[in-house]
Amino acid sequence: MAESPQPVESERPWAELHERIEASDAAGAAEVLADLSLEDQRLAMSHLPPDEQALLMESLLAGEAAEILENLPEAQAADILEDMPSGAAADIVEELPGSVSADVLREMQDRESEAVLAEIDDREEAEKLRTRAEYPWDTAGGLMRTSLASFSEKATVGDVLHELGENAEHYADMDVQYVYVTSASGVLRGVLRLRDLVLTKRNCPVTEVMISDPVSVGVADDFDSLRSTFEEKGYIGLPVVDENGLLAGVVTRQEVREATAEHQTEDYLRSSGILGGEELRSMPMLARCGRRLAWLGPNIVLNLVAASVIAMYEDTLQAVIALAVFLPIVSDMSGCSGNQAVAVSIRELTLGLIRPTEFLRIVWKEGILGIVNGFVLGCLLGAIAGFWKGNVYLGLVIGGALFLNTILSVLLGGMVPLLLKRFKVDPALASGPILTTCTDMCGFFLVLNLASTVLSKLG
Amino acid sequence: MAESPQPVESERPWAELHERIEASDAAGAAEVLADLSLEDQRLAMSHLPPDEQALLMESLLAGEAAEILENLPEAQAADILEDMPSGAAADIVEELPGSVSADVLREMQDRESEAVLAEIDDREEAEKLRTRAEYPWDTAGGLMRTSLASFSEKATVGDVLHELGENAEHYADMDVQYVYVTSASGVLRGVLRLRDLVLTKRNCPVTEVMISDPVSVGVADDFDSLRSTFEEKGYIGLPVVDENGLLAGVVTRQEVREATAEHQTEDYLRSSGILGGEELRSMPMLARCGRRLAWLGPNIVLNLVAASVIAMYEDTLQAVIALAVFLPIVSDMSGCSGNQAVAVSIRELTLGLIRPTEFLRIVWKEGILGIVNGFVLGCLLGAIAGFWKGNVYLGLVIGGALFLNTILSVLLGGMVPLLLKRFKVDPALASGPILTTCTDMCGFFLVLNLASTVLSKLG
Repeated sequence: MAESPQPVESERPWAELHERIEASDAAGAAEVLADLSLEDQRLAMSHLPPDEQALLMESLLAGEAAEILENLPEAQAADILEDMPSGAAADIVEELPGSVSADVLREMQDRESEAVLAEIDDREEAEKLRTRAEYPWDTAGGLMRTSLASFSEKATVGDVLHELGENAEHYADMDVQYVYVTSASGVLRGVLRLRDLVLTKRNCPVTEVMISDPVSVGVADDFDSLRSTFEEKGYIGLPVVDENGLLAGVVTRQEVREATAEHQTEDYLRSSGILGGEELRSMPMLARCGRRLAWLGPNIVLNLVAASVIAMYEDTLQAVIALAVFLPIVSDMSGCSGNQAVAVSIRELTLGLIRPTEFLRIVWKEGILGIVNGFVLGCLLGAIAGFWKGNVYLGLVIGGALFLNTILSVLLGGMVPLLLKRFKVDPALASGPILTTCTDMCGFFLVLNLASTVLSKLG
Repeated sequence: MAESPQPVESERPWAELHERIEASDAAGAAEVLADLSLEDQRLAMSHLPPDEQALLMESLLAGEAAEILENLPEAQAADILEDMPSGAAADIVEELPGSVSADVLREMQDRESEAVLAEIDDREEAEKLRTRAEYPWDTAGGLMRTSLASFSEKATVGDVLHELGENAEHYADMDVQYVYVTSASGVLRGVLRLRDLVLTKRNCPVTEVMISDPVSVGVADDFDSLRSTFEEKGYIGLPVVDENGLLAGVVTRQEVREATAEHQTEDYLRSSGILGGEELRSMPMLARCGRRLAWLGPNIVLNLVAASVIAMYEDTLQAVIALAVFLPIVSDMSGCSGNQAVAVSIRELTLGLIRPTEFLRIVWKEGILGIVNGFVLGCLLGAIAGFWKGNVYLGLVIGGALFLNTILSVLLGGMVPLLLKRFKVDPALASGPILTTCTDMCGFFLVLNLASTVLSKLG
């Protein structure tokens, strides 16, 4: 394959990379990679085996490698760094923007990230990074950016404008809408709006134009409290102070909103049975298998519990084998109805339109809906069952079971997320399996129990 | 109930509202509402019946009502306005911030929103609103804000700073990081960074400091193109121009990211069977029933198709009734495995880590995983089945069926989202039902077909 390098196929940008690396021409591969668009770089990296990804990054300058890793999902960047010698990985981490490096280190195994931190020359910087990586990603400490413009409370407006102007390139990537005023020891004293500075006399002390006692959040503040602070007050950005009241960074509304989006994505993945962070197909096969099995394993147990109901009614089933056709239909359809209620409850909890204690509201709002939808679906499926076998009792059994099970499953689907929320369990993760097990069990029970009561009429 | 108004229970802030409205004291209710926190206002509004929500808004000043509606989900705000006389609704719409009013009008029925627009006094404003509400919400025209600072190309830096300073309060809510330079007819000519202005001589013409021929997006640009533009270049905000090149508004990276979060939420809701926009439990019951049935109806058909496989093997089932216990387990477990693959494919498509044409990559990456996980799960379930009935053939049939069906369902689950994406169908909406139907069908077929080949050994 490697004898005659083909021209880059833009359709498969990873093909030539792979060939060159196989031909031990990592430097050549690095050149090819550098010529790709950001989009194609990401695509190409994801298509290389893990060892080739690491090899390729090693053969780039640390700054170039950092630019490419920054563009990848954090989990993938962390995996690549883990596969590299820790010295080379540390060089790249030093080149990553502050918030990205902490995020990537957080994703790495503890042992590996410690090894990388140990190789960082700037010890102070390494300590800062370790501290940041230890905050959960969705707290103020995890989300904040530490690059900010802060000035002594003795400065004047002129000092601040002069400094900002002189070092414009240093502040260029900081989104400077606010600058901060601190005491000599670093305690937050006030906030200055850039806009106010421009319209103020240069010799005015900053303490006169600053907003004193500004609202701030603590490094350990969790996501829910951050979101409600930003939502209630409409702040664009807030200073973050550490345990000692020292200014540690800034968190912006934008970052909080991005974290909201990340949470929603996590919810979606977890509700589909992807645990332990996101899975990418570039990850090692056995890790992917193991993580998926971690979800499937408990599920198989729940499925056995539900199906054991069928085993208890083998005689009924033996007598009316047609029931076996409708067992999965009744349980599946109720599961679908229940999942709709789960989604609405999770959404209403997220939007703050319902409290986790309001079970009566669910009974009322889902109960009526369950009666209506259960009736419609029950009539439909009951009619099909009745006509198929020409037996009105079979229709009544199947239709009745679906009717009752739909009511039950929308009630359950509506309530389970509230209940889980109250007990601090993630609703997205656990609602589905709990709901499915219960609706399966009840669905099987209703069909077979109703059937056994009119068994003589079903023959 | 209404005779002796109780003190406001903070646990149920809607209770007193409801009592007062029932006692025809809407003005009193409005006072109670005004005293609640934003969070409780939202909670309380969501707990009132639709007619009471509308009544309450009518008894507030338009400005107060606008503040409350702004805080509600758009779909709910639209429903409330639809329930009000169009004159009163128009007064409130006029008080809403520009982007919110367009979003709410877009959610309303065409007839109702036309009636409201007809009642708006400022005809020019009404036309602008109609235009904006006609752009889909996730295009540049739907996401842009129209309040921006623009200046003639004849202005000097001093003119701009003077105007911004003089009318500081007018520009206060505009996030003025950029100001725009247009020709006399409104054609976009350039972009000025506020930061550059501060550091430039006052008599310098803006044309000398502005970035000429700035990157801009068109009002009709769709979400995918917006997102890739922002992602590739890292812009904070971009000017939006209409069909004639006239400056129409500004869209910021933050708005694009919020739209991404909205899309993810929509995907999650649709994948759970909530169609036609979000459902809130404050919506009318029959509308909620109907929209949920719109998803359940087609699903019942798909379920029947899948279960018809069982009907074809009634004899086999009759002979070995224990198979009925395992039919739902095999189909459920395969469905779970397939859903994991669906979630990973949707995620990789979103992140741009896979192209919609890469079926071979799926075959490779999911195929091996399917063999491993199918083997583990098949052995597990097969062993349980075999030991339960003390029949090794039953174990082989059940385990073999789960093994094969797991491979099939992860392949299918991985590919279906790509296929749907290629044919411009929403993967979140359609992947689940397609996958479930296929895996149910194949699961039933595999169990029953394998069983029928060794039927004599199963007795």
